[in-house]
Amino acid sequence: MNKTTWSQLWLDYGKKKGHVSCDKESIAVVLDGFSAENRVIKSLKSELEKAFDGLFDKKIAFADDAKSAEEKAYRITIAKNDSMAAESYKIEADSKTIKVVASCENGALYGVFHVIRELMRGTAIDAIKAECKPSNPLRMMNHWDNMDGSIERGYSGESFFYENNDIVISDRTRDYVRFMASVAVNGIVINNVNVKDAASYLITDRFFDKVRELTEIFADYGIKLYLSLNFASPIELGNLPVCDPLDKDVIKWWDDKFAEVYKKLPLLGGFLVKADSEGRPGPFTYGRNQADGANMLGKAIAPYGGIIIWRCFVYNCTQDWRDRKTDRARAGYDYFKELDGKFLDNVILQIKNGPMDFQIREPISPLIGGLTKTNQMLEVQIAQEYTGHQIDLCYLMPMFKEVLNFKTYCQKDNDTVADIVSGRSFGNKLAGMAAVINTGDNANWTGNYLAAANLYGFGRLAYDTELSSEEIAKEWAEMSFNLEGEETNKLVSMLMNSREIYEKYTSPLGIGWMVTPHEHYGPSIDGYEYSRWGTYHRADHLGIGVDRTDKGTGYAQQYYPENTENYNDPDKCPEELLLFFHHIAYDRKLKDGRTLIQYIYDSHFEGEAEAEKLFETWKGLEAHVEPEVFASVCHRFEMQIANAKEWRDQVNSYFYRKSGIPDEKGREIY
Amino acid sequence: MNKTTWSQLWLDYGKKKGHVSCDKESIAVVLDGFSAENRVIKSLKSELEKAFDGLFDKKIAFADDAKSAEEKAYRITIAKNDSMAAESYKIEADSKTIKVVASCENGALYGVFHVIRELMRGTAIDAIKAECKPSNPLRMMNHWDNMDGSIERGYSGESFFYENNDIVISDRTRDYVRFMASVAVNGIVINNVNVKDAASYLITDRFFDKVRELTEIFADYGIKLYLSLNFASPIELGNLPVCDPLDKDVIKWWDDKFAEVYKKLPLLGGFLVKADSEGRPGPFTYGRNQADGANMLGKAIAPYGGIIIWRCFVYNCTQDWRDRKTDRARAGYDYFKELDGKFLDNVILQIKNGPMDFQIREPISPLIGGLTKTNQMLEVQIAQEYTGHQIDLCYLMPMFKEVLNFKTYCQKDNDTVADIVSGRSFGNKLAGMAAVINTGDNANWTGNYLAAANLYGFGRLAYDTELSSEEIAKEWAEMSFNLEGEETNKLVSMLMNSREIYEKYTSPLGIGWMVTPHEHYGPSIDGYEYSRWGTYHRADHLGIGVDRTDKGTGYAQQYYPENTENYNDPDKCPEELLLFFHHIAYDRKLKDGRTLIQYIYDSHFEGEAEAEKLFETWKGLEAHVEPEVFASVCHRFEMQIANAKEWRDQVNSYFYRKSGIPDEKGREIY
Repeated sequence: MNKTTWSQLWLDYGKKKGHVSCDKESIAVVLDGFSAENRVIKSLKSELEKAFDGLFDKKIAFADDAKSAEEKAYRITIAKNDSMAAESYKIEADSKTIKVVASCENGALYGVFHVIRELMRGTAIDAIKAECKPSNPLRMMNHWDNMDGSIERGYSGESFFYENNDIVISDRTRDYVRFMASVAVNGIVINNVNVKDAASYLITDRFFDKVRELTEIFADYGIKLYLSLNFASPIELGNLPVCDPLDKDVIKWWDDKFAEVYKKLPLLGGFLVKADSEGRPGPFTYGRNQADGANMLGKAIAPYGGIIIWRCFVYNCTQDWRDRKTDRARAGYDYFKELDGKFLDNVILQIKNGPMDFQIREPISPLIGGLTKTNQMLEVQIAQEYTGHQIDLCYLMPMFKEVLNFKTYCQKDNDTVADIVSGRSFGNKLAGMAAVINTGDNANWTGNYLAAANLYGFGRLAYDTELSSEEIAKEWAEMSFNLEGEETNKLVSMLMNSREIYEKYTSPLGIGWMVTPHEHYGPSIDGYEYSRWGTYHRADHLGIGVDRTDKGTGYAQQYYPENTENYNDPDKCPEELLLFFHHIAYDRKLKDGRTLIQYIYDSHFEGEAEAEKLFETWKGLEAHVEPEVFASVCHRFEMQIANAKEWRDQVNSYFYRKSGIPDEKGREIY
Repeated sequence: MNKTTWSQLWLDYGKKKGHVSCDKESIAVVLDGFSAENRVIKSLKSELEKAFDGLFDKKIAFADDAKSAEEKAYRITIAKNDSMAAESYKIEADSKTIKVVASCENGALYGVFHVIRELMRGTAIDAIKAECKPSNPLRMMNHWDNMDGSIERGYSGESFFYENNDIVISDRTRDYVRFMASVAVNGIVINNVNVKDAASYLITDRFFDKVRELTEIFADYGIKLYLSLNFASPIELGNLPVCDPLDKDVIKWWDDKFAEVYKKLPLLGGFLVKADSEGRPGPFTYGRNQADGANMLGKAIAPYGGIIIWRCFVYNCTQDWRDRKTDRARAGYDYFKELDGKFLDNVILQIKNGPMDFQIREPISPLIGGLTKTNQMLEVQIAQEYTGHQIDLCYLMPMFKEVLNFKTYCQKDNDTVADIVSGRSFGNKLAGMAAVINTGDNANWTGNYLAAANLYGFGRLAYDTELSSEEIAKEWAEMSFNLEGEETNKLVSMLMNSREIYEKYTSPLGIGWMVTPHEHYGPSIDGYEYSRWGTYHRADHLGIGVDRTDKGTGYAQQYYPENTENYNDPDKCPEELLLFFHHIAYDRKLKDGRTLIQYIYDSHFEGEAEAEKLFETWKGLEAHVEPEVFASVCHRFEMQIANAKEWRDQVNSYFYRKSGIPDEKGREIY
């Protein structure tokens, strides 16, 4: 079933039929300054057609110019205004016409999707008004899809891009691209950053034809296709003995390769590279640094306007757990800070939001803003690797907002993460946000129906980082469901509380990890404690937490002084990050007077209870949600509650057994 | 390489050439009462031929009877004496002749292998003298080989029986059978007890021809081939809706199936069945008991002389770790004790040595001897699942000897495990020992060259449970290497100490487990602590161990009173099992005055240090061992020492962090 039918997500116009209305008798779309032959404009027209047909059962007419449109028709004018910023749009409407103005086709398309969104939310067409401008020039999705059809950290079925080491192109591909364009995503990396096996051949004749077809489908919706690249390609594909970025033969190989690639794939955006990380090859092998590697590729791709996105997720993953000096959290900054300013203009560093790996709570990577002379892009993960596998509800926009709003103190003003990654702080042209995507070939795309809020949300937020999490949740809920006002609020509040709830029953106070190794779902308190991955909680019978102050690993020193001062001092450290930065005694009093151990107990009991409440709230929506969606989400909540109970009981039992300190409230601990 | 060449193990006659001698100029083999046409006698002759050629470069002559043999030749007479016990033999020799007397071909074959063994060990042919009788009628190997070539818990490569869901028969198969016969194994189960996929079809036309060919090859060396059986075959192969053992259609299906099977495979020994265990189907599904299941099959197979071996490894594997009443250790006894006397004569229960699962130290299963009216067979594992994966040296005969010598008190005399499983205690005809085998398609068969001592040892011990571990180790060492006396002693003493060393650095005092989940190699102290497998250590900040006394799970009550009394009382409990039966405070004094926690620390430091000494001893043998063998074993020791260090440091750190009690000797704990 999941191969032949699939959800239309927030663009399910048919589902909204009868729930929203449009009082205009006839509609004409008029182009003013845009070419009807442009591929994006064609898509825009087709989307309007679909939407009006689906939402209102109305056919719409298309006119080449204002004169040829039917006199009495309500007009949707798509007008070009070259003075506007790229990909921005303006919408004005009155009783006769609605005008979407933009300087480029992408802006026009996003404006049209804005109109459709408002119509779906029940806004009268002549009441729609907007002026929107992208916060980030690059708004990207990263697929970790493998060509055998599996998805690394995928929780929504198999890949819809690949099957049996080949590329699959279908109507589903086109729908996916529509969804992405509807939230203004403009770049998509279609293969896993761990490039192996067949995926190494994506830049060869074996796959050029199909990749080209994909680049065309993407381009129809204003999206650039990117590929992840195997740094060892000169060895694997070119039979060279090395892939040393300073080796002449290697440089020539890449020069030739990119010439070939761009001849075959003129629309390609560029490449994403994971090098020297978790077993991937990279410049370190040859005593070179990360800039050597990135610049070699950047130089080779420059003639074609391509860009190189270089990931900063470089750390020692064969650490000794006995070693308390080496700190994985330090690694990104340690490797890249000294290279600030050494990267070419068409190279951009992609930096994970936190210094570890997508935990439910981490401090912001000190590299963001730590670099001031380098293009940088924020990487987040909407695939819920450590946040519930799309079984547990965990709406991530509140977390991303915290990240974006974080003041780095890298300069006097314009110093937040949002400022930096958008390019505003330092005037970078290459700048933006990327998300590791949460899709698969499940009929509903994201496993849990409600996880689509993250898919939708990331795009919206990347386009406009000023949007609140709540606004985004509301948009998504209104487009995706047919709920009454109060019910929508309930759903929005479920989403809004979900991250904190997940944090409470899993690993609060910034400690993170404590998950089942490899799988990353469910608790295993010591699962990563004696491992090679640099992920420790250091709990003993007296306390827990990692000393990352100047007396410990020194990680806190990687921030600008204003932040360092706070992080370095347990009394000033934000409590939600206390155990990330400090080893704290179980009997230490927290701000509200409770001891640490009591906080741990309380948090886990509360978190589990609140997860149950989420389920109760969902059950209250039964009458208003399609039965299949209702039942499927119920099943997810059943699993979430089982998971929450395991976390609650295992964490509490672990710390009770270790500390010997009983719960003040006498609740059951094993 | 491992597909085309392989070690000859302890039958490598060529390797002994020049190291042993035989002063007889010519040799003639004379049959007296045995038919030269018998398949086993043919094999016996061929083996003698190989041995004399390999060891001494001597051709031997074969005579149909005494008269036709060359006058001056030294004679090896194979004489029949019907009054002797089955599979026993007697050897007498003088300067003119050596006489191997037996009542059956298997006895003769084992006698000949005895002669060869002694020749390899340097005994003069006319000094060989023996009188040997099998302790156990059934001496079996259980392969956990899957038809896709994988081996469950295999640490020596892939299967040599299967490839790509088909059976492979080659010279390697024949050599394997020779090795097994040389240690008097007389039954082999060739497929995994978890019967799935292609293996379900072993009892269908798809595989009959090849299985038949295997039964013939096995029969040439006096070995019966057995198959593991899928209890759900009536459903999977027969399209019946159930596999209920009391269902008429099911009974008929099996009647017909066994008729078909024995028509095609007349030499088949019977079937091994794992039912109602770890997800396998079984009679419980239909509200039937284990006897219903076993007897249904037993009855159906009886007309053909086949037997049903029914495993007692039945327990709840979806237990809740919070539940301290349910005790996996109890399960076997709880399920089977009440069925004592209800099993048919051609059914035999196969009982693991301990109540858990092949840990480095467990008490003896109370089911052995707990049952007094039921055929029972001891199951041990020479595949080193929990004992070092054939990376770490762990010679298991000392453990098996402890098991065999255990006094159950099931009756006044003849009450040891050896007595019971041999049939001596209660007069059972079906009785014996089985081992989960440690072989694979590695060139050396067992991964670690030294692990072959377990392969050799199990057969020898099953044939003669009176042999000491040391004698067996010495035999194997002398046959497998060309070491001088003192060097042989060193190797033997390495083997003899290895189990205790492994126990010391892993999980002493009977606590067991604490291994990496699924994989079962390397430490994960809490790895199984919060799991569904019923395998807990219950450590808290005050103590560790599982209370299985009358105040705890009551497991200790499953023994006869003499044993219960000891196990139930921490002061009387054998110390090596203390934590299996009792939850003990870290500061409790053990017999030698040390506290429990100090014992834990000491044991782990000592164990690791002793593992290093093992390696040193091995290095001392370098000059006397083939370079390839030497290097390969060195590599294993390097891995073992790394493993021992992880165990030492993780266990010690875990208990230090939990108890807060420092090591008295101030050694490094993390």
